Amino acid sequence: RVNSMDLALRARAEAVIPGGMYGHQSVALMPEGYPQFFARAEGAHLWDVDGNRYLDFMCGYGPNLFGYGHAAIDGAYIDQLRKGDAMTGPAAVMVEFAEALVGQVAHADWAMFCKNGSDANTMALMTARAHTGRKTVVLAHGAYHGAQPWSTPVPAGTTPDDRANQIFCEYNDVESLEKAVKQAGDDLAAIFASPIKHDVFVDQQLPAPEYAAAARRLCDQSGALLVVDDVRAGFRLARDCSWSLVDVKPDLSCWGKAIANGHPISALLGADVARKAASSIYVTGSYWFAAAAMAAGVETLKLIRETDYLEHTRRLGLALREGFAAAAARHGFSLRQTGPAELPLIMFDEDPGLKKGYAWCADMMRRGVYLHPWHNMFICQAMTDADIAGAVEAADGAFAALKAA
Amino acid sequence: RVNSMDLALRARAEAVIPGGMYGHQSVALMPEGYPQFFARAEGAHLWDVDGNRYLDFMCGYGPNLFGYGHAAIDGAYIDQLRKGDAMTGPAAVMVEFAEALVGQVAHADWAMFCKNGSDANTMALMTARAHTGRKTVVLAHGAYHGAQPWSTPVPAGTTPDDRANQIFCEYNDVESLEKAVKQAGDDLAAIFASPIKHDVFVDQQLPAPEYAAAARRLCDQSGALLVVDDVRAGFRLARDCSWSLVDVKPDLSCWGKAIANGHPISALLGADVARKAASSIYVTGSYWFAAAAMAAGVETLKLIRETDYLEHTRRLGLALREGFAAAAARHGFSLRQTGPAELPLIMFDEDPGLKKGYAWCADMMRRGVYLHPWHNMFICQAMTDADIAGAVEAADGAFAALKAA
Repeated sequence: RVNSMDLALRARAEAVIPGGMYGHQSVALMPEGYPQFFARAEGAHLWDVDGNRYLDFMCGYGPNLFGYGHAAIDGAYIDQLRKGDAMTGPAAVMVEFAEALVGQVAHADWAMFCKNGSDANTMALMTARAHTGRKTVVLAHGAYHGAQPWSTPVPAGTTPDDRANQIFCEYNDVESLEKAVKQAGDDLAAIFASPIKHDVFVDQQLPAPEYAAAARRLCDQSGALLVVDDVRAGFRLARDCSWSLVDVKPDLSCWGKAIANGHPISALLGADVARKAASSIYVTGSYWFAAAAMAAGVETLKLIRETDYLEHTRRLGLALREGFAAAAARHGFSLRQTGPAELPLIMFDEDPGLKKGYAWCADMMRRGVYLHPWHNMFICQAMTDADIAGAVEAADGAFAALKAA
Repeated sequence: RVNSMDLALRARAEAVIPGGMYGHQSVALMPEGYPQFFARAEGAHLWDVDGNRYLDFMCGYGPNLFGYGHAAIDGAYIDQLRKGDAMTGPAAVMVEFAEALVGQVAHADWAMFCKNGSDANTMALMTARAHTGRKTVVLAHGAYHGAQPWSTPVPAGTTPDDRANQIFCEYNDVESLEKAVKQAGDDLAAIFASPIKHDVFVDQQLPAPEYAAAARRLCDQSGALLVVDDVRAGFRLARDCSWSLVDVKPDLSCWGKAIANGHPISALLGADVARKAASSIYVTGSYWFAAAAMAAGVETLKLIRETDYLEHTRRLGLALREGFAAAAARHGFSLRQTGPAELPLIMFDEDPGLKKGYAWCADMMRRGVYLHPWHNMFICQAMTDADIAGAVEAADGAFAALKAA
């Protein structure tokens, strides 16, 4: 496997980008040898700058739901770009996309668009504070809600004031949630929840129905707003907000990534109860009303309504899980596969420091399967049974090699 | 002038978007009758959803520098989109765009990309705090640095903690800047500056050279970082950071809007002194590493280097200013035209409540010239002498009508 172009680009990047790369797509914490730069993407596959091809289980860290370079979605983007994108006001497609989302997500009566998942979460925070006139928010330890000063998981460059008025609980632990809410007293503005526990480096968890119900009940009792941050999992677990699976409707939900299959747009959706507060906050951005990503979103929502993408990705995810488990067992390894089948996290049992996981993932990468050792992965609609079978076959070889090492 | 489609869309928007529209492109505070929704943009012109055509002096509130639908820039975007956009890692074009910006902006040794001007300002804030280990920032009253909780001009949904560690001075007032810095004591992390005073509702001001020099000196003396927020004015006043015009190099500068002619990307540029701090903060976004907008940026930088856009927009801006002043005088009005010619703000003298300005702008809009009564405007490279002459002719008619009213 050649990687000379990647190394040359990294050297150039080192000169003009702090640390050579930053943010969630930096490979600094990935197993040795992972490519940093990519040349091409199509369907379920990526090609790095040296021409190596990968079946991509990261899907752009979430945006790729229907396949890279999807003809209808990219066509809608390009058609709208040719009419007008970042104009002096929005196009009609802004209303169409808002209507499509409100039609798709049961709890939502309105939509506001932005550019980052962080933006949507910050708008939820501001809306909840404006609605209640209170400050305190309850969040789960280790949950990711973006990377602004109040939310970034790394404290460098932030102040204690940025994190003021935050109380933490443990995900899926009703008692700890109740305790946090009690601690907020009469100042509770919102409870934030990930739709599933998709924290990095640790086992994933589906939401316990009683946890979701408690979050709803505690908000109802206090007048606070319930926020589900569906940026990462949205439309990958349900054709609705992910907490529809546990029969709980939030007041606000945050969306991004897959809602336009990778075109740059995110959204805050809300119920009528929060409409007035949402219209009172001042949030905006240079490209928030640009039309092309909205046209791509309308097309994506159409595919969400009209195709079997959800059943397809679930079926492939389950086949992948079973295939990996069987291959691991054949070579004497025991895997810990957590999270929903469509958003799998694969780790090894008895693997301090993720040593086995890193070695196995690096080998899989060299075999043309791009996995992530500590971040949830994604199944996309463009993957086929043959892709999954190929990944399982590669896994068999990589487990054998790991055993031999 | 027909506006039935616009009214119908507003009614639909009212149902699914809080307030019907939000952010800087809402026409709620514009003169009566301004269209909210647009169907098409080409070169220097916009068409609203009812088919009315406008010479657009807002340029998308800044992004449109080389003309809407620019063939080479949009072509670069589409070509890269077809190769790969929001992939699992960046493309080589990320390095190329960073190199192009570093080559173009004298103070810059590195670049980080993001999606909103707000993001770039927040990254500057975090970088300065990480660099100094201090918290306090000095900003000018009324200056706009984005719309996150620490920066949004409207306090709804924010807390006093969001605005902690901020001290305000008056733009271009050296004494007030010195006083603010003194008040920060040994906790000064950064001085933020707009490249020009482009606050809404008030006269614009070019930077006083002694103000810029004082900001640089005070940062040098204290070890704080100087930040120029060039999101709105960047590459419209100089082929470098706007403060190159007053011979002052900041440590950090914020960019967006015109850097990719409307494609969604913004950037923080920095000097070597801030590189380590910049690499220590954790900031990221779902689409920050998407390649297509970077390809558009590379093409835009090429046009910035190789065309006379700057001289052209300056010349047209000056012609517009002179033409409007003469037309106003002919009808007995006195205009207050402030800001650089490329970013004009046009107000009437003796115009409490902007009553004349609103009536005149509304009439200009009906005559096919889209002006803004209280926000700086923009001249784009796609405008022609004939466009300016047409705007001046419309102005003559609108002044006459205003006089007759």
